[in-house]
Amino acid sequence: MNHSLRRRRAAKAAAEAGVEALLLTHLPDVRYLTGFTGSNGTVVLVGGKAALFTDGRYTTQAKEQTKGLKVVTVPKSAAAAAGAWLAEQGVKRCGVVAAHTTLAQLDGMRQALPAGLRRSFFKPVEPLVAKLREVKDADEVAILRKAAALGCRLFDPMLTLLQPGMTEVEVAAELEYAARRAGASGMSFDTIVASGVRSSLPHGTASLARLPRRGFVTLDFGVMVDGYCSDMTRTVHLGKATAAEREVYDSVLEAQLAAVAAVRPGVALGDVDEAARSVLRRAGLDKQFIHSTGHGVGLEIHEMPHVAAKQTAVLQEGMVITIEPGVYLAGRFGVRIEDMVLVTARGGETLTPTLKAWIEL
Amino acid sequence: MNHSLRRRRAAKAAAEAGVEALLLTHLPDVRYLTGFTGSNGTVVLVGGKAALFTDGRYTTQAKEQTKGLKVVTVPKSAAAAAGAWLAEQGVKRCGVVAAHTTLAQLDGMRQALPAGLRRSFFKPVEPLVAKLREVKDADEVAILRKAAALGCRLFDPMLTLLQPGMTEVEVAAELEYAARRAGASGMSFDTIVASGVRSSLPHGTASLARLPRRGFVTLDFGVMVDGYCSDMTRTVHLGKATAAEREVYDSVLEAQLAAVAAVRPGVALGDVDEAARSVLRRAGLDKQFIHSTGHGVGLEIHEMPHVAAKQTAVLQEGMVITIEPGVYLAGRFGVRIEDMVLVTARGGETLTPTLKAWIEL
Repeated sequence: MNHSLRRRRAAKAAAEAGVEALLLTHLPDVRYLTGFTGSNGTVVLVGGKAALFTDGRYTTQAKEQTKGLKVVTVPKSAAAAAGAWLAEQGVKRCGVVAAHTTLAQLDGMRQALPAGLRRSFFKPVEPLVAKLREVKDADEVAILRKAAALGCRLFDPMLTLLQPGMTEVEVAAELEYAARRAGASGMSFDTIVASGVRSSLPHGTASLARLPRRGFVTLDFGVMVDGYCSDMTRTVHLGKATAAEREVYDSVLEAQLAAVAAVRPGVALGDVDEAARSVLRRAGLDKQFIHSTGHGVGLEIHEMPHVAAKQTAVLQEGMVITIEPGVYLAGRFGVRIEDMVLVTARGGETLTPTLKAWIEL
Repeated sequence: MNHSLRRRRAAKAAAEAGVEALLLTHLPDVRYLTGFTGSNGTVVLVGGKAALFTDGRYTTQAKEQTKGLKVVTVPKSAAAAAGAWLAEQGVKRCGVVAAHTTLAQLDGMRQALPAGLRRSFFKPVEPLVAKLREVKDADEVAILRKAAALGCRLFDPMLTLLQPGMTEVEVAAELEYAARRAGASGMSFDTIVASGVRSSLPHGTASLARLPRRGFVTLDFGVMVDGYCSDMTRTVHLGKATAAEREVYDSVLEAQLAAVAAVRPGVALGDVDEAARSVLRRAGLDKQFIHSTGHGVGLEIHEMPHVAAKQTAVLQEGMVITIEPGVYLAGRFGVRIEDMVLVTARGGETLTPTLKAWIEL
């Protein structure tokens, strides 16, 4: 990982935002810029240099994981100490990310400054590093491929395991155990196993409900590999489906494939969303597609960009996004199909190529 | 769960803080006050009434999970819509929790208000609901007992499983699989398995390192049950220990027992911390006890109160805290022992009564 290149890019973005220094507390940003994986860390960038503030639990780890920056161990708030340190260096105006800074944090950081600087020192800025993180570098793409492939390999064995009567939690247990044994450091979010009528809940994390003899099972899961997330969803049917179930599945699949086909550098995010949404509109199912089409995925399971209606920002080569249309018929059933897609010069490359064809078990 | 009683208490705290309404976005607070478990929700309390704002994914779930409040589904930011709704009701001044509100969120919420109200409408307040949540009610204590007991039951089988040469990740896989099969809905944090020299890292989440033939293994793990967290740590030794290893273990255990013995309503949190710290000071190990003694545990793995040096707030009956002193000798080894402790009228009741005596495997 070329952390120093990333820091130079972040410093450039800060300069463009009109601040001479940048103070970052969001842990995925901290990891992205330094390699440090601890649970308490603040990074500051100033005049081509960087420093990482953390606490005594992480002194050893911070020095081992980082290169080319100063590591400072402080007893209390890393962010407040970092701000005070910048003021000592003569900095007059420091950017803090508005989306990642709470009112309480800002207050604490201000209290640590000399009185004369308190009002003017911190300037809220856009999530500059989250924006840089939208486009993955080669190292990140390699890890995301690995994570996505690991996730994919977990799916086929699940098909021989799903049985009416087992609980959703048992399904999640088997999936997560297999993930760990395959080398995942954990799951990237609470595993969703939504069966029968629960498949109509877009976010039905595994419950004690039992898989039905007839009905859909939606599996939405992701693994963590080297700090990066995978994310995929498949929906399969237990027993013989009704014509209505089959029709909804086919429409969602068609929508998903249309959105993946729309992926190409320069295409607006809103147009990718519309590619999926228009298929469902023609099928009379767009009112039941109640969320956006996808999101970026990387160090965080949900990150920029937002693949949603009316988004005018465009896809760039190196972005990794999910494409996950779904249809939810309240009280009846639901279907969602999701892949991770890498934006390449030639179009979208699906990183989770597990079968999406209709499966009746 | 008596959510309406909790809401009345929160409304009273808001009145005492000088605001006529309260807007809450922190999801554990939302769950605590309403029962709603979705990933997007804002609660407002005003004039003895409550409303929950969420998005279309959660319309069904929000209505099923809550009682005695209005559920409003909005297409965009639930918090901004909730603030605007309060303004329509004639509210002039609404509390927002400073520790849980970002600068970007506050800005978005202000933009949704009539221009004349923007400057004065939102008043940052202390984490009032987190404060209420410090003292658990009977329903919560029952669930926390269940979660702690489930965690406890996972430990003994691990002792027959730990073998030199297996990776830390494999240990975590077995533990987490057993947790799921025993009914946990997930883990309450990334499982820590820190073996050999890695036991000297206070936060060594499971890695690909292999368990040594001789050395400590620290297991720090927790399960989720009905939304509540358990948390416990045990450190065992593989192979024959050195005298130094045994001495450190005995000191940490003595410190842990001393702190548990100090737990009683009315005792200052700082005195509980000092009970552990003074034992380690006498053993010449206090400089290597580089974190605080414990924290509250409930809907979140880390919540108030903070059991740390100099904290003058006192323990109250019904609090559930961890007691987890540790000693970390950089580059050599570390030991931590942790229990969950319920504060009762008669003193501390350990909810995780798994053996803490010296174990050599």
